Amino acid sequence: MDPFCWGGHMQDIRRVTVVGGGLIGASWCALFLVHGLEVVLHDVVPDAERRVREELQRISPVLQSLGLVLDPQTPRLSFTLDLADAVRHADAVQECGPERLAFKQDLWARIERHCSPTTLLMSSSSGITASMQSRRMNTPERMLIAHPFNPPHLIPLVELVPGRRTDARAMAVAQVFFTGLGKRVVRLRKEIPGFVANRIQAAVIRESVSLVRQGVVSVEDLDVAVTQSLGLRWAVGGPFISAHLGGGAGGIRAFWGQFATGLQLLWLHMRLKPVWLGRGAQLDLAEAVEKAYGAKPVAELAMARDRQQNAVLGALRASLDTSEDDKA
Amino acid sequence: MDPFCWGGHMQDIRRVTVVGGGLIGASWCALFLVHGLEVVLHDVVPDAERRVREELQRISPVLQSLGLVLDPQTPRLSFTLDLADAVRHADAVQECGPERLAFKQDLWARIERHCSPTTLLMSSSSGITASMQSRRMNTPERMLIAHPFNPPHLIPLVELVPGRRTDARAMAVAQVFFTGLGKRVVRLRKEIPGFVANRIQAAVIRESVSLVRQGVVSVEDLDVAVTQSLGLRWAVGGPFISAHLGGGAGGIRAFWGQFATGLQLLWLHMRLKPVWLGRGAQLDLAEAVEKAYGAKPVAELAMARDRQQNAVLGALRASLDTSEDDKA
Repeated sequence: MDPFCWGGHMQDIRRVTVVGGGLIGASWCALFLVHGLEVVLHDVVPDAERRVREELQRISPVLQSLGLVLDPQTPRLSFTLDLADAVRHADAVQECGPERLAFKQDLWARIERHCSPTTLLMSSSSGITASMQSRRMNTPERMLIAHPFNPPHLIPLVELVPGRRTDARAMAVAQVFFTGLGKRVVRLRKEIPGFVANRIQAAVIRESVSLVRQGVVSVEDLDVAVTQSLGLRWAVGGPFISAHLGGGAGGIRAFWGQFATGLQLLWLHMRLKPVWLGRGAQLDLAEAVEKAYGAKPVAELAMARDRQQNAVLGALRASLDTSEDDKA
Repeated sequence: MDPFCWGGHMQDIRRVTVVGGGLIGASWCALFLVHGLEVVLHDVVPDAERRVREELQRISPVLQSLGLVLDPQTPRLSFTLDLADAVRHADAVQECGPERLAFKQDLWARIERHCSPTTLLMSSSSGITASMQSRRMNTPERMLIAHPFNPPHLIPLVELVPGRRTDARAMAVAQVFFTGLGKRVVRLRKEIPGFVANRIQAAVIRESVSLVRQGVVSVEDLDVAVTQSLGLRWAVGGPFISAHLGGGAGGIRAFWGQFATGLQLLWLHMRLKPVWLGRGAQLDLAEAVEKAYGAKPVAELAMARDRQQNAVLGALRASLDTSEDDKA
């Protein structure tokens, strides 16, 4: 028996129920609405409708500047205090409730009773895994994490994280759905606290706090150091392609040759448990990086990177000039 | 006795000697030349001139797209194999030699003998501190680290790091010099391995390697996760202003209230030695963040951030569209 039939769903999520009308919930609403979906918002707070429509009002000029039209009063958005009503006709549910395990477990058990067996169930949680949330569900195979980076109407990333019992087809449907909304989807292969983006963010916040607390640099200068170097770089290419290009013509292998020892010593000094970067690990990672990026020569990748880097630098300069004009 | 007279120098570094004609040296040359300076390049390798002029040729179109004219054959750039000749008339020296302590100690002792007593002496080293490099110098007060982020002709950051014996006036002169070249200068208050940017980069590379080695995510997806969330964010605002805005109307205090515990637990899970974030530390950091950014309300800062964020997203999209057109 197939408890839910994904085949018919693949291109066809038209009605989404957003549970929770906070900032993340409102931002998801904005994204779903500008892509023509019908959205039902459920919250237990009676003035959720007023607050969400106000938030949409605030968001709409930003979306307009991207050429996306958001009417905060659109009839495609409806509200209900009744959870059963909210999910009854939903093709998908995007949960944005409080980060409390008992709340989410209870919520999914109730949603499951009232929605169609084909409804895709997704949580925006950044901390509570799908395996934990779905413990009281009869159909955990269709429940997964779809974790946005705030604000979801603007920042492209969505991390899809399966629980132990999530069906690969549910992941595939979610990927098609979010890709269709213009999001950049990353599928994690395992549950891990913080997923990818928040773990990396946590590592950066830790070192930032440590440097300021040690009196090495001011808060403001730390922010300048990041925005004026690493931020620019990572807006254009992530850590692995940056390492690949950082090795020059020799790519990632040359990078490890030049920097692996220094990196490991730096981790020690920073009191981070070193990750083993011996020859075997370097080789494995080099092969993975070359599989991802090796089809083009490093020089060609570097030229594309520099062109994009310049575009970003130019846009930031122009945007700052505009703000200065606003002040004048 | 004042061994060197910075007053007369403040706006007046016109002749710079670059020691070392590798990629960093050539990139510094490009930056100095487009700002009208006279540059002497010293290297012990006889074909340094050919290699540097070739690299300038490669760099010039990128600079041209920024409206900066670089003539790779400019007579303002000269070459010499003789160190004494190279530094004799220099207002400043930018060292870009190999990362070997003995080499650098010997180099500075020789440079010091042949340059003017007022010459500012700077090393591009990312790893060997000014205190170590200047150990054999008689005038260590004018020697400091000016560490660029690669490539220096493009990426704005320069980290200035004093040694224990560096004079504050030397730091001030270097700051005026690089600011005049359009660089964003960050002054560190203490020597620390990796300085700021490379320590933060090391923390990110460690977690990235760890996530891939644990099988959580592919190399390519890790890069997507970073570029499509954190990179975009950090191109516009660093970790502290991002935390301040992440707290909503309550700013950094609300951010700590909401996330300090979770962050510390995540550090534990990531096997990073936790940095103490108790109430006292949170308060100190909140005061520092409010001193840096508190003059404007969070909502106003957030609007400026979103505007810049959109500019960056738009530039990246346009730049990718152009590359697609190139292919077609």
